[in-house]
Amino acid sequence: MAIDPNSLLLRALRGEPVPRPPVWFMRQAGRYMAEYRAIREKVSFLELCHDPDLCCEVTLQPLRRFGFDAGIIFSDILLPLEAMGARLIFGKGHGPQFPEPIRDRAAIDALKAIDPWKDLPSPLRAIQLTAAAADVPILGFAGAPFTLACYLVEGAGSKEWVTTKRLMWDDPVAFGRLLDKLADMVAAHLQAQVDAGAAAVQVFDTWAGALSAEDFQRWALPYARKALSQVKGAPTLYFTRDAGPFLPWLKDSGADAVGLDWRVDMAMARAALGETPVQGNLDPIALHAPAEVIREKVHSVIRAAGPRGHVFNLGHGIVPSTPMAGVDAAIAAVKEWSWTS
Amino acid sequence: MAIDPNSLLLRALRGEPVPRPPVWFMRQAGRYMAEYRAIREKVSFLELCHDPDLCCEVTLQPLRRFGFDAGIIFSDILLPLEAMGARLIFGKGHGPQFPEPIRDRAAIDALKAIDPWKDLPSPLRAIQLTAAAADVPILGFAGAPFTLACYLVEGAGSKEWVTTKRLMWDDPVAFGRLLDKLADMVAAHLQAQVDAGAAAVQVFDTWAGALSAEDFQRWALPYARKALSQVKGAPTLYFTRDAGPFLPWLKDSGADAVGLDWRVDMAMARAALGETPVQGNLDPIALHAPAEVIREKVHSVIRAAGPRGHVFNLGHGIVPSTPMAGVDAAIAAVKEWSWTS
Repeated sequence: MAIDPNSLLLRALRGEPVPRPPVWFMRQAGRYMAEYRAIREKVSFLELCHDPDLCCEVTLQPLRRFGFDAGIIFSDILLPLEAMGARLIFGKGHGPQFPEPIRDRAAIDALKAIDPWKDLPSPLRAIQLTAAAADVPILGFAGAPFTLACYLVEGAGSKEWVTTKRLMWDDPVAFGRLLDKLADMVAAHLQAQVDAGAAAVQVFDTWAGALSAEDFQRWALPYARKALSQVKGAPTLYFTRDAGPFLPWLKDSGADAVGLDWRVDMAMARAALGETPVQGNLDPIALHAPAEVIREKVHSVIRAAGPRGHVFNLGHGIVPSTPMAGVDAAIAAVKEWSWTS
Repeated sequence: MAIDPNSLLLRALRGEPVPRPPVWFMRQAGRYMAEYRAIREKVSFLELCHDPDLCCEVTLQPLRRFGFDAGIIFSDILLPLEAMGARLIFGKGHGPQFPEPIRDRAAIDALKAIDPWKDLPSPLRAIQLTAAAADVPILGFAGAPFTLACYLVEGAGSKEWVTTKRLMWDDPVAFGRLLDKLADMVAAHLQAQVDAGAAAVQVFDTWAGALSAEDFQRWALPYARKALSQVKGAPTLYFTRDAGPFLPWLKDSGADAVGLDWRVDMAMARAALGETPVQGNLDPIALHAPAEVIREKVHSVIRAAGPRGHVFNLGHGIVPSTPMAGVDAAIAAVKEWSWTS
C-alpha cells in the first residue's frame, strides 16, 4: 500500500489535531508473542534479521494480532555495523558481541562506509515487502552514533561502558572520527529505508543515558543530529533512554519528534519541548498490571500529552514476560480515547 | 572525636559559605582499594558487615589514603531487612538474595519492627568506633523504603523489577503496608545511627528511578519522606539514581539535601531546587579519565553548583575498576578550588 499521508501516525507527527493518538510499541514484534517464538525455533536471531520475508512476517504479526496503528520493521540496530566490517555474533544465552572490538585509530579507519542497497539490503527489502502488505505505516530505524559506538568499542553490552568512556576521554579525536563515520552510515541507512517505503524513521540512542549532561551534549546529541538532519522525505524521531535529564536539549536533535522514556513526566516534557511532537511513554512493565490500572495509566499519559503532536508508545521496548492481555488492554484504552468528546 | 559543627560537610549542608565544597565519594570504601581487598580475602561480605572493628577499619582506609572530608560507615542497606526476619544471602559471584521473597500480606505482616541497638548493633557500634577514631564527620545511611521493597519482593537484584511492580499494582494496599513498615524501620535505624555519632545520614533510593514520574510520587517519595522527617539531630540527604526526571519533587523528600546522579545537569538542578543543598555529581566512570580531564570535569561541577550548599561527590558509587590515581586527581581538583580567590 502507498503511504497514507493522512494516517494517524503522520498527522500526529506533523502536530495536526487527531481524534486520538496513534499507538505502536517499541519491540512490538518479539518474544512475548507465541507466533514470534514459533519462528525463532526454526532460525537464529541473525538469520531472521537477514531474511526479508521472515522480517516482513514477524513485523506483520503484532499488526494482525493487536491492531497497532503502525509497525516498525523487524531488524537490529547492530546489523549496519556488520555491514561496515565488524564481526557480530549473537551467542546462545548472551547478548550481541563484537569479538574484535574497535578501540584504536587503525580499527576505526578500517570501518567501511556502506552502500545500503549493496551492503545491507535485508531491512530495505523487508520494508518494501511489509509496506506493500500492511495497511498501516511502517517505520524504519537505526541506532544513534553514540549508542552504536558503545557496542563497537565495548565489544558487548555493559552496565558502565567503562571502555567506551575511556576511549572518549583518552582520545577524543579518534572517538569523534568514529562517531562521524557512524553518523554518515546512519544517515545513509535511514535514507535508504525512507526510499524503500518507510513512512517515518526512528533513531534509538539507548545508551546516551549513560552520559553526564555535559558529555551528552558533546558526544551524543551532535552526532545524532548529524545523521537525522540528512534524512529527507519522511518524519524522524529521536528516542533516548533516560531522556529526563536532557529535556532542554532534545529540541536540538534534528528530529521532528522526541521519544520519551517512562520516567519522564509527560506534562513536564511538553512544557520543555513546546510544539515539538512527542512519543511515549507508558512504563513497559505496566502491561503486567490489571486492565483497569493499565487503562488509568494510558489515559493519564494521553491527557498530559494533550491533543496535538502525541504518538502513544511505551517508554521502552516490550519485555518478553509481557502478557498479551496487557497489550490488548493498553491498545483498547488508547482507541477508546476521544479528544472531540 | 566529637562532631565538629564547623566541618566543611556540615557547613555545606546548612547552606553556609565555604571556601571550597567538602568531598566524599559514595562507596569510597570498597573493592577498588587493595587494602579493602586484603580484608575481604579473610572474611565474607556479610561477616565484614557484622564486625564493627572491621567496618571501622575499612571506613577509615579511604580517609587515610585519600584525605576525604567525610566518611560513610561501611555497611549494607539490606542488613536491616535481615534484622526484620528476612533471610539474606550473598552467594559467591551473585548479588544479594532473599531466598524467601516477600510477596503476600502474610509475609509482610511477619516482618518484625526492629529495636536497632538490640537487633542491629553492628553498624551502630561501628559508627561509635569510627567517629571516635576519625578526624572528619562520619555519615550513616539506609536504603529508602521503595528500594528496600524492591529487593524484598523480587528476592534479588533486577533490571526490570517486574515482580515488585506487579505487587504494587495488583495489591496496592499490601504494598503500601510493606512500605509503611519499612519507613518506620528506616526512621528507627537512621535515628539510632545519629544517636551513635553519625554527623549526617543519607537515604539511598537507588531503584526509585525504575518508576514513572507518577509512581515515583506515589510509591517512592512519600515513604522516603516518612522516614526522613522523623530523624532529629543531624542533617539528612536523599539520593536517587535517575533523579533527573524527578527534580521538581525532590524538594519534598523531607531531607535537608538532595543527592544527584551524574546525568543531571548541575545548573538545571540548582534552578529546580532553589536553596536546597545538593550533593554530587561527577560521572563515577570519569575517574578512569586522564587527570586533566578529571580536573576540568570536577571544576565544571563545582562552578555550576555555586558557592553555597554543595557537597562534592560522584553521581553514583565508585566502580571496582577505578584507578587510585583518578581518585587522587579528583580530590586534588576539589581541594585546589577556591570560592574566595
